[in-house]
Amino acid sequence: MKLCVIGLGLIGGSIAKDLKKTGFATEVAGVETNPEHAKEALRLGIADRIASLEEGVAGADMVIVATPVDIALNLLPTVLELAESHTTVTDMGSTKRYLVEAVRNHPCRRNYVAAHPMAGTENSGPSAALDNLFQGKIAIICDQELSGPQHLALVEKMFHALGMNIAYMTSDEQDHTTAFVSHLPHAAAYALANAVQDKADRQIIFDLASGGFNSTVRLAKSAGSMWHPIFEQNRDYVVESLDVYLKHLEQFRDAIANGESHKLSELIGNANRIRSILDGENPRFRKNEETFVKFYTT
Amino acid sequence: MKLCVIGLGLIGGSIAKDLKKTGFATEVAGVETNPEHAKEALRLGIADRIASLEEGVAGADMVIVATPVDIALNLLPTVLELAESHTTVTDMGSTKRYLVEAVRNHPCRRNYVAAHPMAGTENSGPSAALDNLFQGKIAIICDQELSGPQHLALVEKMFHALGMNIAYMTSDEQDHTTAFVSHLPHAAAYALANAVQDKADRQIIFDLASGGFNSTVRLAKSAGSMWHPIFEQNRDYVVESLDVYLKHLEQFRDAIANGESHKLSELIGNANRIRSILDGENPRFRKNEETFVKFYTT
Repeated sequence: MKLCVIGLGLIGGSIAKDLKKTGFATEVAGVETNPEHAKEALRLGIADRIASLEEGVAGADMVIVATPVDIALNLLPTVLELAESHTTVTDMGSTKRYLVEAVRNHPCRRNYVAAHPMAGTENSGPSAALDNLFQGKIAIICDQELSGPQHLALVEKMFHALGMNIAYMTSDEQDHTTAFVSHLPHAAAYALANAVQDKADRQIIFDLASGGFNSTVRLAKSAGSMWHPIFEQNRDYVVESLDVYLKHLEQFRDAIANGESHKLSELIGNANRIRSILDGENPRFRKNEETFVKFYTT
Repeated sequence: MKLCVIGLGLIGGSIAKDLKKTGFATEVAGVETNPEHAKEALRLGIADRIASLEEGVAGADMVIVATPVDIALNLLPTVLELAESHTTVTDMGSTKRYLVEAVRNHPCRRNYVAAHPMAGTENSGPSAALDNLFQGKIAIICDQELSGPQHLALVEKMFHALGMNIAYMTSDEQDHTTAFVSHLPHAAAYALANAVQDKADRQIIFDLASGGFNSTVRLAKSAGSMWHPIFEQNRDYVVESLDVYLKHLEQFRDAIANGESHKLSELIGNANRIRSILDGENPRFRKNEETFVKFYTT
């Protein structure tokens, strides 16, 4: 299988590495406009060769767009035009409605499978690419009825090769849930980093930062080139999630400020319920069950 | 050195384990009112024996109060009364002003050293105790001029045995900075857990939760029995920190909602500066420097 990966950063680089390792891809052509990243990707063996967009897409069995979502939005129609009739095109972006809308009436729409693997770190560039980044995680496939069955099957096969479970939903559902589970935590971390840096005594504050602080603020290290366009493309749902968060944060603040001890206990108790869900103690929420895919397809 | 640890949970248990391992303590008497925790602590070898408060404090060279801060506030005056004249008493709580005030005029005040090791996890109880939990972290000692020099020296020796660096500040400074670096991230995580659980489609949201979400919300698993009294004892500074956070979160929300692209870039860029500080790329903020203690003592 000849693979073309557009964007050799954390996500594209990690996918290319794993798909070569598992034998899913026999050859990886990388398209990368940043010359430093291109050089680094070759050095790390992420791509076998660096190609222009035209050269990379020509002859590829599968093209994976792994750029920031604003660039993906510009590229996708062109990629579909350049692609051969048998070529499967997919993308890895965190927002889906704009992309799906941009190619709704494209003559090659059925070659495209809208996807979003829920994995990543706060780092970027080819040097941030990791082995097994996707293992055991969830990949979302959106609006699958708009994709040709052979293209859908190939993308599913790719995610299984990466060790992922697959969830199927509409691009609207994906953008809504991802706003809460991924985009909101990033916004919360960015604002927390800004709030703490707002203090005059930054020096003392940061010398004292412990594991809890680092964990909560970790996502604030994430690159703006990736996250800025996500916030813009998912504006309505991200704002909704921030409004819900602001409401809960104000409740928490008021319970402390007004000495409402009973209310504060209730808020902490409810927040603690996240443990049973995240740690998989509640079978309804346990991950990697065989029934998982069924759950989303029913 | 005969050690008495009051409260054999995550903090008390971890300290007891390390101080025995390093030879700092030859005998550990544990005071623990939860019978299950007492049994577990004996089984795990955290304490050599379980004692009543009176038995535990009698004959101890050092008493460490490692209970939630509301219990510590009630216990500390009694512990100082029970302690022998040579006994050093310290505590590990995250808030310091109330404790220091409670024993300001106590005849044995100079036996007491107010301290706060900046380390922990979201888990609790003796089974949560970890080896080397404190290694490389910062311990804060407050209002050291109110402690007798021999008691201060012994507590410093204990923190060095745990592998910690020491910062010296007033209890007011400690409560203020800790509000931002530790209490605010906990409040932010609790509110984030509540915000996400507020959505009807909890099931889907939690199946999709990835590493970024888990990291940001991790502290929301922390026990209310520990955190509720911290928020109450540090009410003014925690509310201040939440107000600063709310302001920055609203700025972030408005920049997205109003499509203020330039403003959003600025906010993300400023938040990104946390990387150079937390990762120690900026020498001014590098941890574990020899100059560290000097910095706080000047």
